[in-house]
Amino acid sequence: MNQTELLHRQFSHLRDLKPFDTAHSATPWLSEPDSRLHRKMCQSLQEAIERSGLQDGMTISFHHAFREGDRVINRVVAQLADMGFKNLTLASSSLMTCNDALIEHIRSGVIRRIYTSGMRGKLAEAISHGLMDEPVQIHSHGGRVKLLQDGELSIDVAFLGVPCSDEFGNANGTGGHASCGSLGYAMVDAQFARKVVLLTETLVPYPNMPASLVQDQVDYVVQVESVGDPAKISVGAARVTSNPRELMIARDAADVIEHSGYFRNGFSMQTGSGAAATACTRFMEEKMERNGVKARFALGGITGGLVSLHEKGLIEKLLDTQCFDGEAAASLARNPNHVEISTNVYANPGSKAACCDRLDVVILSALEIDVDFNVNVITGSDGVMRGASGGHCDVAAAANLTIVVAPLLRSRIPTVVKRVTTRLTPGESIDVLVTDHGIAVNPARPEIRQRLENAGLNVVDINALYERAISLTGVPKPIEFTDKIVGVIRYRDGSVIDVVHQVKE
Amino acid sequence: MNQTELLHRQFSHLRDLKPFDTAHSATPWLSEPDSRLHRKMCQSLQEAIERSGLQDGMTISFHHAFREGDRVINRVVAQLADMGFKNLTLASSSLMTCNDALIEHIRSGVIRRIYTSGMRGKLAEAISHGLMDEPVQIHSHGGRVKLLQDGELSIDVAFLGVPCSDEFGNANGTGGHASCGSLGYAMVDAQFARKVVLLTETLVPYPNMPASLVQDQVDYVVQVESVGDPAKISVGAARVTSNPRELMIARDAADVIEHSGYFRNGFSMQTGSGAAATACTRFMEEKMERNGVKARFALGGITGGLVSLHEKGLIEKLLDTQCFDGEAAASLARNPNHVEISTNVYANPGSKAACCDRLDVVILSALEIDVDFNVNVITGSDGVMRGASGGHCDVAAAANLTIVVAPLLRSRIPTVVKRVTTRLTPGESIDVLVTDHGIAVNPARPEIRQRLENAGLNVVDINALYERAISLTGVPKPIEFTDKIVGVIRYRDGSVIDVVHQVKE
Repeated sequence: MNQTELLHRQFSHLRDLKPFDTAHSATPWLSEPDSRLHRKMCQSLQEAIERSGLQDGMTISFHHAFREGDRVINRVVAQLADMGFKNLTLASSSLMTCNDALIEHIRSGVIRRIYTSGMRGKLAEAISHGLMDEPVQIHSHGGRVKLLQDGELSIDVAFLGVPCSDEFGNANGTGGHASCGSLGYAMVDAQFARKVVLLTETLVPYPNMPASLVQDQVDYVVQVESVGDPAKISVGAARVTSNPRELMIARDAADVIEHSGYFRNGFSMQTGSGAAATACTRFMEEKMERNGVKARFALGGITGGLVSLHEKGLIEKLLDTQCFDGEAAASLARNPNHVEISTNVYANPGSKAACCDRLDVVILSALEIDVDFNVNVITGSDGVMRGASGGHCDVAAAANLTIVVAPLLRSRIPTVVKRVTTRLTPGESIDVLVTDHGIAVNPARPEIRQRLENAGLNVVDINALYERAISLTGVPKPIEFTDKIVGVIRYRDGSVIDVVHQVKE
Repeated sequence: MNQTELLHRQFSHLRDLKPFDTAHSATPWLSEPDSRLHRKMCQSLQEAIERSGLQDGMTISFHHAFREGDRVINRVVAQLADMGFKNLTLASSSLMTCNDALIEHIRSGVIRRIYTSGMRGKLAEAISHGLMDEPVQIHSHGGRVKLLQDGELSIDVAFLGVPCSDEFGNANGTGGHASCGSLGYAMVDAQFARKVVLLTETLVPYPNMPASLVQDQVDYVVQVESVGDPAKISVGAARVTSNPRELMIARDAADVIEHSGYFRNGFSMQTGSGAAATACTRFMEEKMERNGVKARFALGGITGGLVSLHEKGLIEKLLDTQCFDGEAAASLARNPNHVEISTNVYANPGSKAACCDRLDVVILSALEIDVDFNVNVITGSDGVMRGASGGHCDVAAAANLTIVVAPLLRSRIPTVVKRVTTRLTPGESIDVLVTDHGIAVNPARPEIRQRLENAGLNVVDINALYERAISLTGVPKPIEFTDKIVGVIRYRDGSVIDVVHQVKE
C-alpha cells in the first residue's frame, strides 16, 4: 500500500487527494520552454478570439480610456463580424462618437444587446430611433461593477487595449507611445472576465512591473499597430473650455465651494469631465492659496489642472480612474501620490468601500435639471441619446456637497425644466445648481443656502430659474416618443430609475 | 402603468429589474455619515470577530510576513479560544517557532485542522508526536493559492496584520513603525477570503494609497498595539551567516551560476531564505561587475543584499513576495522598481502566469537530499518536522537552473542520504547540488555537468557524496515511526507527494 492509499484509509475525508505523478503532469504547458514562456502570445486578433473560446450569444467587454481616440472596439467587433459571430452582448464601459461603425454590426445581428455608460453621435441617434430590438442598458461607472458583482452582467471575454504589455500580460497605461494613463475601467474587466485578451501597441521586455493589469489576470496577448490616439481623449466631453459663459459658471461654482462650509483644510473634491466643471479647478487654485487650504485628495477623472494643483502641493493625492488628458497620464507615470484606482474602488455602491463615499465636493454637469433637481445627462432636448451616465449618480449620491453646473439655456433651449426628459440622478442627490442666471439650492439643504446668501452670492429659487428660462424661450414643445423602450436607465444600485423611449420620426 | 412595468411588459427577460426607490435604499449604510465613513472600524478584536460572522468549524487565515516576530496569530487564536470557538481550520501561510502558544488551542479543540507551509519549534515537535487527530497539510507558497483556486481551501475570515491602514482598509507594509515590507502572502488572502479583518498597528488618514491591500477587499479594521516585531523577520531561516563553511558553499554556488550557461545579461535569479543561499548574493556581485552582466530581475524573498545590487544597477527589478529584512522593507518604500507581488503572481502553477516560470537560476537549501536529488525541507534527521515547504518545489520546478546548497554533514548527521525522510521537491526539479565536499549534477543535465567540469569546478557523483558522508558518520539508524500520518506533503499542484508519520517516543 502506498502512502496515499494509507492516507485515504486513515482519513476518509481526504480520499479525493491524488498521488503525485511528475512535476508538470497537472500543468503540461509548463513543461516546455516554448509554452511556458510564450503561451499567451497570439499572432493575430483572430487567433486570440479563437483561443478565447468566444461563442455566439456570449458577452464581450471593452474599456473606454481612450474615449474618442479608441481604436479597439470597432476593430474587434469588425473582426468578430468577419468571423461570423452573432447575438453578442457588448459591454463596453462606455461608447463614443467614434463607435458609429457599430451600427452595421447591430443591424447584421453580431451585437444584440448593449450595456454601456453612454453613447454619442450616429450610433446613439440610430439606437434612439429604434435600431435595436432590445433596449440599451445605461449604467453608471460604479453601477457597472455592481452589475458584474450581482451577476446580471457576466463577461466572457474582455478585449482590453493597452499602450504597453509584456508577453505575460503585465500592462499599464503609462508606458509605450499611446499613453492613456489610468486603466481604472479595464482593471475591473480584468478582475471579472472569464477570459482576458490584451491588445497591446508596444510589447516590452518582461517584467513590465509595476503593472495596472497583472499577469495572473491575463489569458492572451496580441500586438496591434494602434490601440488608440491619446490626443483624442480630451475631445468632446473632456475638452477644455474658453467659452466666457462656461468660465463664469465655473468661477461661481468655485465661489459656492468656498462658502459652502466644506472648503477647509483636508477637504476632497471631484471636478468631473464637463467643460465648466473642469474649468472650475483653476479658480479653486487661487482660493486654496489665499485661504491656506489644501485638499487631501481629488478623485475620479484627472486633468492637467488637477495635476498642476497636486504638484504645487495644493492636493495631496490624486485618485485616478481615468486620465482626461496627456498631462494627467504623464503625471501618473511620474508622481507616486497620483494613484490609479479601479471603478470598483472609485464608486461601486456594492464595493466593500468606494472612494466617492469620502468625497466632500463634486462638480457635475447636466443636459437638463428639473425643478426637483433631478438631472438628465443622457438625452438631448430632442429626446435622442447623446451623453453618458458616467460617475454622475455615483458621486452625487455620495458627496457631501454636489454641485451641478449648467447654462440656463443652450442654443435657446432651456436647461432648467419642469421635468427632465430622462432621469439619471435623483434630485435628492443634488445640493446646488450653478447657472449663468443664478444659483439654486436644494430646499433639503437650507444651511447651505444660508451660507451662500451670507456670502452675498446670487441665490435664487430653482422655480425662478425655470420661469426665467421659459420667459426667454417659451415653453418647449413636448418631444414625441413612441411606446417602444430603447434605453433602460439603471441607477447605481441596479434599479430602473427611468427608461428612454424611441423618438418619433 | 409605470415605466418599469412597461419595461417588464415589453421585455420579459428583464422582468427581474426593480424600480428605483431612493438613492440609498439598497445600501442603507451609505445614507448616514457615521456608517458611511466609519462602518469598518471595530473597537476591539472581539468586536471584529463577532462582526465577521465566524462560526465553529470555519476556516481562518493569517500571513507570516513578520515571520518569528509575528504577534497576530497567537493573539487572534487566543481571543477565539476565549470566545469559545471550536473546530476551526487554521490556514496560515506559514507557522514559526513563535507559534508554540497554539499547542494549547489545538489540545482544547479550538483548532482542528491546519494548512501551512511549515512549522518549527515546540508546535512542530508536538504535532510530529501526534498532537492532532488530523494530519497537517503542508503546502508550498504557490500551492497554497492553487488550493484556494481549486476550493479545497476556502477562507471564511482572514485576519491580516499590517503596519498601517486607513479606516477603509487601504494598507501597506511600508508605512507605520512595524514595517514588514511586502504583503505578498496577505494579498492572496485579501483576494480569496469571504471576510477580511485587518489588524493595524498604525491608523493613518485616508487615503493610505498606493495600497497593497485595497479598501474594496477589506471588511473590518481594528487597531492593535502591535502586529509584529520586524527585527525578528531575519531571525531563523532568513538569517545572515558568517559561518565559514556556509560562506564557502555560497561562493561555490556563485561559481556554478557563473559557469552554468545561464549567467548572461538579462538573466534572472532567486536566492531564497537559507543562510548560504542568501550569502551567495554577495559573491554574485563581484562576478556581475567583472563580467558586465546585469540581471533583469530577482524574485521571491528579497534581502538587503539584493537591494544593494539593485541600487548599484546590477539588478533591474526586484519582484518581492516577502521582505527578509528591514533593508528590503525600506527599499520597497523607496525604489519604484522594487515591486510587491502576491504569491499567486509569484509561484502558483494554476495562475494565469507565475513569475517563477521566467526564472533562470534559483538557489535553494535542503535538510536532506538523496541520491535521486529528491529534497526534504520539512523533517529533521529525527523525523520531527522543523522546516517549511516555502517556494521550494515551486521555483525548483520552474527555474532553468535549480541549485541546492547544503553542507554534507550537519552535527555529524549526513545531509546527502540514500532516500530522504520526507520528499518535498522531486529530484527531477533539482539540477545541481553544491556541498562543502563537491558539486553534484543531476544526470538529466549532462550539458551543465560538462560546463562546470570545463570550468574546473569540483564536480563529483552524488553517490560519491553519499558514500563520503556515511564513511564519516556511518549509516544512520532508521528513524522509528508509527503508522499514524501526522502530515501530508502537498505538491504545488495539490497532489500528495509524501506523508509524514508520527515519530515513536
